[in-house]
Amino acid sequence: MSTSIRIVLVETSHPGNIGAVARAMKNMSLDELVLVNPRQFPHPEATARASGAEDVLTQARVTDSLSAALQGCGLILASTSRERGDQYLRVTDAREAARRAVTHDDGSPVAILFGTERTGLTTEELRYAHALLAIPANPVYPSLNLAMAVQIVAYEILCARLENGQRSARTIASSSVPLADPEELDRMYAHLAEVLEEIDFRDRTQSGVHLMRRLRRFLQRAEPDINEVHILRGILTAIQQRRRRAMPHGQ
Amino acid sequence: MSTSIRIVLVETSHPGNIGAVARAMKNMSLDELVLVNPRQFPHPEATARASGAEDVLTQARVTDSLSAALQGCGLILASTSRERGDQYLRVTDAREAARRAVTHDDGSPVAILFGTERTGLTTEELRYAHALLAIPANPVYPSLNLAMAVQIVAYEILCARLENGQRSARTIASSSVPLADPEELDRMYAHLAEVLEEIDFRDRTQSGVHLMRRLRRFLQRAEPDINEVHILRGILTAIQQRRRRAMPHGQ
Repeated sequence: MSTSIRIVLVETSHPGNIGAVARAMKNMSLDELVLVNPRQFPHPEATARASGAEDVLTQARVTDSLSAALQGCGLILASTSRERGDQYLRVTDAREAARRAVTHDDGSPVAILFGTERTGLTTEELRYAHALLAIPANPVYPSLNLAMAVQIVAYEILCARLENGQRSARTIASSSVPLADPEELDRMYAHLAEVLEEIDFRDRTQSGVHLMRRLRRFLQRAEPDINEVHILRGILTAIQQRRRRAMPHGQ
Repeated sequence: MSTSIRIVLVETSHPGNIGAVARAMKNMSLDELVLVNPRQFPHPEATARASGAEDVLTQARVTDSLSAALQGCGLILASTSRERGDQYLRVTDAREAARRAVTHDDGSPVAILFGTERTGLTTEELRYAHALLAIPANPVYPSLNLAMAVQIVAYEILCARLENGQRSARTIASSSVPLADPEELDRMYAHLAEVLEEIDFRDRTQSGVHLMRRLRRFLQRAEPDINEVHILRGILTAIQQRRRRAMPHGQ
């Protein structure tokens, strides 16, 4: 069974771009579109630009939060321009990212996120991502139109699927245990923050918010599966229990 | 010297598409655009959609015949949808065509032709082509927007040039901080094992050896750099210090 791939557009400003994305997706045999707080949707301009891919628009799901859009997803890739990036997440080019996406096989959908036309994804929106996806471009004029970026990524996904079909199984090391979903990860990071607070850990070089973001990026890079999240939470709980048992009268 | 590549649009109907093509080209470091009998050009909509790539539009050459547009060219590739094709010309996919274009080295420019939005290139217009270029697409909905098609071809040209330049490094490690070396990692894992022992953490499902191997694999996947190892060791030390301060008489 082939991996389901979800295109997630975050706070898109121009409805025409949403329509062009629908067409680009359908041209490349993708059909799962999720819109997080689009400025205007549905909209006649979206329908006009979809030109034959209205079915993708009609089936599109609209959500009011990124976490709702990502519900149930495993691997999450965030598109970015190379120069913005995020120093703590790995940057993969579109071709390599597409190959990863189509060979991801834990049974859960893969999501690929695209931010707003003007500014892309915010640092906050990157928190669910396991890796960044960058489209190689002219360094002095790297900013692609949103629908063009989706077109290239969708094209690479189709190429990767064709490659995958033709080629007899390159060995891909991939766990069959599902990746932890975004909500489980949120709970784990909240638990970690709580423990760091309790043990009074302060990194000398960084503020608390920065530290948590840093740790989160670090752990996201490892792509935690559900068993690994259970182990980590078990360790966090053990730290808390031992401390509480050791201090019967509280602090 | 790198091969000069000319994008030739034949009888384009919508000026917006011409603008979007200019932007797509500049994004991918192409700048030579020739327009054969465009329906409307120059046009404000072309300029609007070019958004930062007006220089490509300004330099664009307008001709009244395909042969004038192709003057001086060597290799000529004609884009087509696979099912239209031409039984006597070889059909090459976009990736392979781009590789051929960038490695073409007879000193003359390579031209890539795109026909009208509705019907593509006529049989007559194919007469100059050496090969056809087809973009892999959904067989039941294969017709890409003109500017999208140019975007994909231009993207493949940039990728082929990059491949040609430096065949290595697909996955780009983003951080410039050096990865932790194996000895530092060993010390970190030993420290982690010590803390798990002290907090009496036992994973119910796994033996101790197995657990440590598991945690190590997990953290290795994140490719820890030296700063991240320092942060993790800081956390481990904080866990130990708080426990020791809390239990002055030992256990």
